[in-house]
Amino acid sequence: MSERGSLLLDRRDGVLVITLNRPDRLNAVDAAVSEEMLAVLNELMLDRRTHVVVLTGAGRGFCSGMDIQGGDGPGDAAQQEGRAQRLYGGIAVGGEVTARLREIPQPVIAALHGPVAGMGVSWALACDLRVADPTTRFVVPFTDLGLSGGDCGLSWLLPRLVGPGRAADILYRAKRLSVEEADALGLITERAEEGKDLEAALALAEELLQRSPYGLRRTKELLNASLDAPGLRQQLIAETGIQTVAFFTEDLVEGLSATLAKRRPTFKNR
Amino acid sequence: MSERGSLLLDRRDGVLVITLNRPDRLNAVDAAVSEEMLAVLNELMLDRRTHVVVLTGAGRGFCSGMDIQGGDGPGDAAQQEGRAQRLYGGIAVGGEVTARLREIPQPVIAALHGPVAGMGVSWALACDLRVADPTTRFVVPFTDLGLSGGDCGLSWLLPRLVGPGRAADILYRAKRLSVEEADALGLITERAEEGKDLEAALALAEELLQRSPYGLRRTKELLNASLDAPGLRQQLIAETGIQTVAFFTEDLVEGLSATLAKRRPTFKNR
Amino acid sequence: MSERGSLLLDRRDGVLVITLNRPDRLNAVDAAVSEEMLAVLNELMLDRRTHVVVLTGAGRGFCSGMDIQGGDGPGDAAQQEGRAQRLYGGIAVGGEVTARLREIPQPVIAALHGPVAGMGVSWALACDLRVADPTTRFVVPFTDLGLSGGDCGLSWLLPRLVGPGRAADILYRAKRLSVEEADALGLITERAEEGKDLEAALALAEELLQRSPYGLRRTKELLNASLDAPGLRQQLIAETGIQTVAFFTEDLVEGLSATLAKRRPTFKNR
Repeated sequence: MSERGSLLLDRRDGVLVITLNRPDRLNAVDAAVSEEMLAVLNELMLDRRTHVVVLTGAGRGFCSGMDIQGGDGPGDAAQQEGRAQRLYGGIAVGGEVTARLREIPQPVIAALHGPVAGMGVSWALACDLRVADPTTRFVVPFTDLGLSGGDCGLSWLLPRLVGPGRAADILYRAKRLSVEEADALGLITERAEEGKDLEAALALAEELLQRSPYGLRRTKELLNASLDAPGLRQQLIAETGIQTVAFFTEDLVEGLSATLAKRRPTFKNR
Repeated sequence: MSERGSLLLDRRDGVLVITLNRPDRLNAVDAAVSEEMLAVLNELMLDRRTHVVVLTGAGRGFCSGMDIQGGDGPGDAAQQEGRAQRLYGGIAVGGEVTARLREIPQPVIAALHGPVAGMGVSWALACDLRVADPTTRFVVPFTDLGLSGGDCGLSWLLPRLVGPGRAADILYRAKRLSVEEADALGLITERAEEGKDLEAALALAEELLQRSPYGLRRTKELLNASLDAPGLRQQLIAETGIQTVAFFTEDLVEGLSATLAKRRPTFKNR
Repeated sequence: MSERGSLLLDRRDGVLVITLNRPDRLNAVDAAVSEEMLAVLNELMLDRRTHVVVLTGAGRGFCSGMDIQGGDGPGDAAQQEGRAQRLYGGIAVGGEVTARLREIPQPVIAALHGPVAGMGVSWALACDLRVADPTTRFVVPFTDLGLSGGDCGLSWLLPRLVGPGRAADILYRAKRLSVEEADALGLITERAEEGKDLEAALALAEELLQRSPYGLRRTKELLNASLDAPGLRQQLIAETGIQTVAFFTEDLVEGLSATLAKRRPTFKNR
């Protein structure tokens, strides 16, 4: 377990657990948190030993959103900028984290409990899978604050996950979603007992670790590329190259042998 | 309350109620209705006092679709055109209304009852939110008429709202959807008692009026832009500029103060 | 009924039933099957007498996926290629079948029973409508085999049909879906009794045959174009031209007359 500013990083065998660690502020995201998250995600782009990432929050909530009262970040540059530049930069980094959560090749599991609010909703929805305990509630108060519901990717993620009609209903009306409501909308992969969301996320990570790292990484990349693909034929070209490469790996031989022998395969990422 | 051809326009404080008013024809849309709708929507693009729009139909149905027996519109130009040009133009104006319902910055609530048929389905689905009473039924008879189910935006809206598999089932088979079926597919925001759809839509409009006009308008624009965005990163750029502007408004101060004081905010669109 | 290699082709009045016919191999798809499928689909592009296609599998399953142990196809060219070229080519033809199932103008109904696995899932999901009996199960074992879940269009089709969150859950975890689970996700148009999937698909084909061929074909084309359309306005242009043409057909007159007379129309594709 190591600390990087307001993040806790726990590297286990093949799994990196990132914990937002400002529990006294319900893990509100200030400029420092966003920049630390971005640094960790940028490293994951080239990290070949980490196969699954878990993102959670310390204390009684996942994340209470952007820390509007917070500081302007650690850099010198920030101190010399005007207010408009600082605000734009701060929001942009939050959105960059959303984009990077999707762009890193490792599947990311959000372990959710308590409030998941504002920018925290964007980050939770940018994850590939979501485990939630019964205290989880999604809060998008933007239109009650004078803000737009388009925040850090939310106007892109939410209509794709729940459909444009339901997204409008949720964002215009600043609706709170209980875990039951979020589950009915397809936003929850697995429900955990109270206080057990991290434990359930780690069990799910363990399940994914049993699978082919090449297969998992490429599936994540292709699913994300799919949403931006101009059409099926562009996606087919991406898929075909990726699938052909798999036939030149030792792991494919292991996967086929194990399946024929009705045993679980042991993949080595070779 | 004013009349504009076959439309009734009822301007209330911040809300414009547009009523299709050909009840003897179940509000069939002839060229005049389409052109009047388009004129009203074009004005709304620049109307800063109207924050929410309600669209409904007079009498026992919302809209029975394009009036195929109807006239060719009020313009002189139409009289001099050939049949192909007139038909293309008439259908195109219907589709233009669909596009404008999405493009105006004000959220639009459809108040639905009785038949919602043909072009009326496109217009209802182009609205952001839908309130429906139990008499509501969606009717897409195109393939029984020799027509295509792609009509005034329907082949774009329906797969996005219910998924491409269900859209094919509905359009190929010219399925009728009861309000229960439409609700199960996520097409209905709120169900009203019989004959109370307009009342319920006005209550929903009143709820939206309590929220930040800037936040509502930008959320609508971003949700619509999202569906056409080439990718997440383009959407993030749009979101970030819009969100930064909000920090320079008086309404943000009011929204934050009200939230901290646990009272409802009073927004002034400043 | 005719044979073309490993396919059975049954031409009925307006309906073509294609049966994958390697029941001893659970209809595994080798290079020959893919190339034969492609030839049949290419002919359907210009086939004006076939209005509906049904795709099914002989024996106790629909399709067990790509035949990895299978041969390299009938062509001489294949014999002279390297392994990488042959593999790329084989996977690419499977994806081409997926694309052509969407691109032919006739609606395609999949009649499903037993295993629907690997490439068979892509082909089943590329069909417009799916009828399934209770023995049907969808199997996507890619990440357990060392392969990517992006296979023959699956990473494009699945997120569009069930949403990106559920698609990640299914593909990362190599989930099996029972017919109940697939139905709850909206993947099944109609459920048939055990062993009656082909019968139910033919009844559905019969229902579609009663509808306007022009309307059905253009609706299919527009629904598919819709998913790749850059935006609503491009789709409106496509829709408006297509709809205007319908007004110059005899079938529109028949459709309108029949509807006014409350009788079923008889369309002649004129």
